Amino acid sequence: MKKVVTIGGGTGSYTVLSGLKKLPDMSLTALVSMADDGGSTGVLRDELGVLPPGDVRQCLIALSEHSDVVRTLMGYRFSEGTLSGHSFGNIFLAALEKVTGDFVKGVEIASEILKVRGKVVPITTSKVELSICLSDDSCIKGENTINHADLQIKGITSISYTEEAYLNPHAKDAILKADVIILGPGNYYCSVIPNLIVEGFKDVLQKSSAKIIFPVNLTNKHGHTLGWKVSDYVKDIEKYLGKQLDYIVVNSQTPSEEQITHYKMEEGDDVLTEDDMGDDSRVIRGVLLSHAIIKYNEADTIQNLRSFIRHDKDKLAEAIAKII
Amino acid sequence: MKKVVTIGGGTGSYTVLSGLKKLPDMSLTALVSMADDGGSTGVLRDELGVLPPGDVRQCLIALSEHSDVVRTLMGYRFSEGTLSGHSFGNIFLAALEKVTGDFVKGVEIASEILKVRGKVVPITTSKVELSICLSDDSCIKGENTINHADLQIKGITSISYTEEAYLNPHAKDAILKADVIILGPGNYYCSVIPNLIVEGFKDVLQKSSAKIIFPVNLTNKHGHTLGWKVSDYVKDIEKYLGKQLDYIVVNSQTPSEEQITHYKMEEGDDVLTEDDMGDDSRVIRGVLLSHAIIKYNEADTIQNLRSFIRHDKDKLAEAIAKII
Repeated sequence: MKKVVTIGGGTGSYTVLSGLKKLPDMSLTALVSMADDGGSTGVLRDELGVLPPGDVRQCLIALSEHSDVVRTLMGYRFSEGTLSGHSFGNIFLAALEKVTGDFVKGVEIASEILKVRGKVVPITTSKVELSICLSDDSCIKGENTINHADLQIKGITSISYTEEAYLNPHAKDAILKADVIILGPGNYYCSVIPNLIVEGFKDVLQKSSAKIIFPVNLTNKHGHTLGWKVSDYVKDIEKYLGKQLDYIVVNSQTPSEEQITHYKMEEGDDVLTEDDMGDDSRVIRGVLLSHAIIKYNEADTIQNLRSFIRHDKDKLAEAIAKII
Repeated sequence: MKKVVTIGGGTGSYTVLSGLKKLPDMSLTALVSMADDGGSTGVLRDELGVLPPGDVRQCLIALSEHSDVVRTLMGYRFSEGTLSGHSFGNIFLAALEKVTGDFVKGVEIASEILKVRGKVVPITTSKVELSICLSDDSCIKGENTINHADLQIKGITSISYTEEAYLNPHAKDAILKADVIILGPGNYYCSVIPNLIVEGFKDVLQKSSAKIIFPVNLTNKHGHTLGWKVSDYVKDIEKYLGKQLDYIVVNSQTPSEEQITHYKMEEGDDVLTEDDMGDDSRVIRGVLLSHAIIKYNEADTIQNLRSFIRHDKDKLAEAIAKII
């Protein structure tokens, strides 16, 4: 039984966990970023003072072995009235935090109700606000604002939280016991890096003997990583890790013209992450793209802006399984 | 295994079901009024077009054998932000109706998630609005409005729905198979009678060989039943049933001075239902009062107006069990 830890946010972690869940002989723990402050999650944070439920919700749905209808319920978004835009699963987690007085306890109960295989663990239980400072000493605060900001014109000088964010002891424990750690996939600065900058993470990672696998982003994000090649991601993430990656999972499949066109409209040129890793022995290449069509959802305008070039959950899980 | 059917609304059905749930050798089915249009339920009806979840929610909680925290979650009311005043359980049922497209199916799934012992069945799945017409030919529409209206000054001439409300086939089935039917307890015109006036109910009841038990209201409601004695309730409800009651459960315990004082402030004099049934052999008398203190809940102003003179769930269940 391999102890597999994923580190990420919502959509990317949903993909990798949905794939890994089907594989035997794995104990799964999802460490989840707590930086989200947009959409339904942002409203619940602001109004109820709860920790951000959105990314945790997606990981719970991915690992749930309950019926399809219950998993659909958790992802259901209201589209009318005062509840409009809220995900039911977010309201569920917010109510559980209110009832138990403890987000982590609430996630445990949610896991039990949803028959979750594995564990979902917030990377921190501090109430955090992400802050990215640029070369002109200006700082952009809040994940949702950062997500839409151009960080590349001026260049990033530091990424941190506005107040101390401490590593959740359950996350520490999972990292120390892990055989394998998978970073992402996901929005690089908004879903992956926010986990790595939590106070204590880097130190604990040095003590872990886990093999670290990084499925590199398939595409670059406008204003964040436009023009990046695989080696840029690798060099950058290793700074935050304080150690080398063991495996770099790279997609070798060319997306369809339609996918590329759509993507270029959203993000600009240099959208595909070019593989410049040559014969680096850590690189595992494979056909990893999803052909799923993401349906337009009028209640979720955020989802509609999300990538149409995505990892296929099963292909990604298979590639990871081969490494493990 | 006795087939026991309760007929009522929210709080009263919650009480009797919570008590009966603990008893062995009973198969429980709760038939629930669908007339509620106030509070959180009213907002969800108006905004989302769903069937009223509130009374069903209370019956599900009563029959749930899940952990205390999950039962508390279902009854949790938000007290901040745009969700303020909403019961989580109501949102849960509304989302399930949206996801499944069918309120009854949603209640089934909710029952599975909540590990409900027995069944909770809406008396009708028609979208109903209660209407009470008075002797001056004026009609008051909507359960919440009726609840706060004075019906006694002019006197009721008819109680109906503004559009046809058909008996849910699952409810029909339960009535036909029942060994015992318990009416209420509950708000007489707003929770009990709305079940009995559904198209088809009276006919089906004539075909049922179930013993009918009526735990008479402990107190009279201002503007609705003030000054009523036990015989008034019995005569009135038998009109709707089209047959005689088999057992009338009457409380013989005097409430505390504090309870009476509080109640008189809310409802006026003649608040206690006087037992004028003499030696009627159908009457079962017992010590039935609850001593529980209902906590003030700032998020639930409706609950705060509810009765402090209530049936004790265990005493009521025992009294019913003796009859059965």
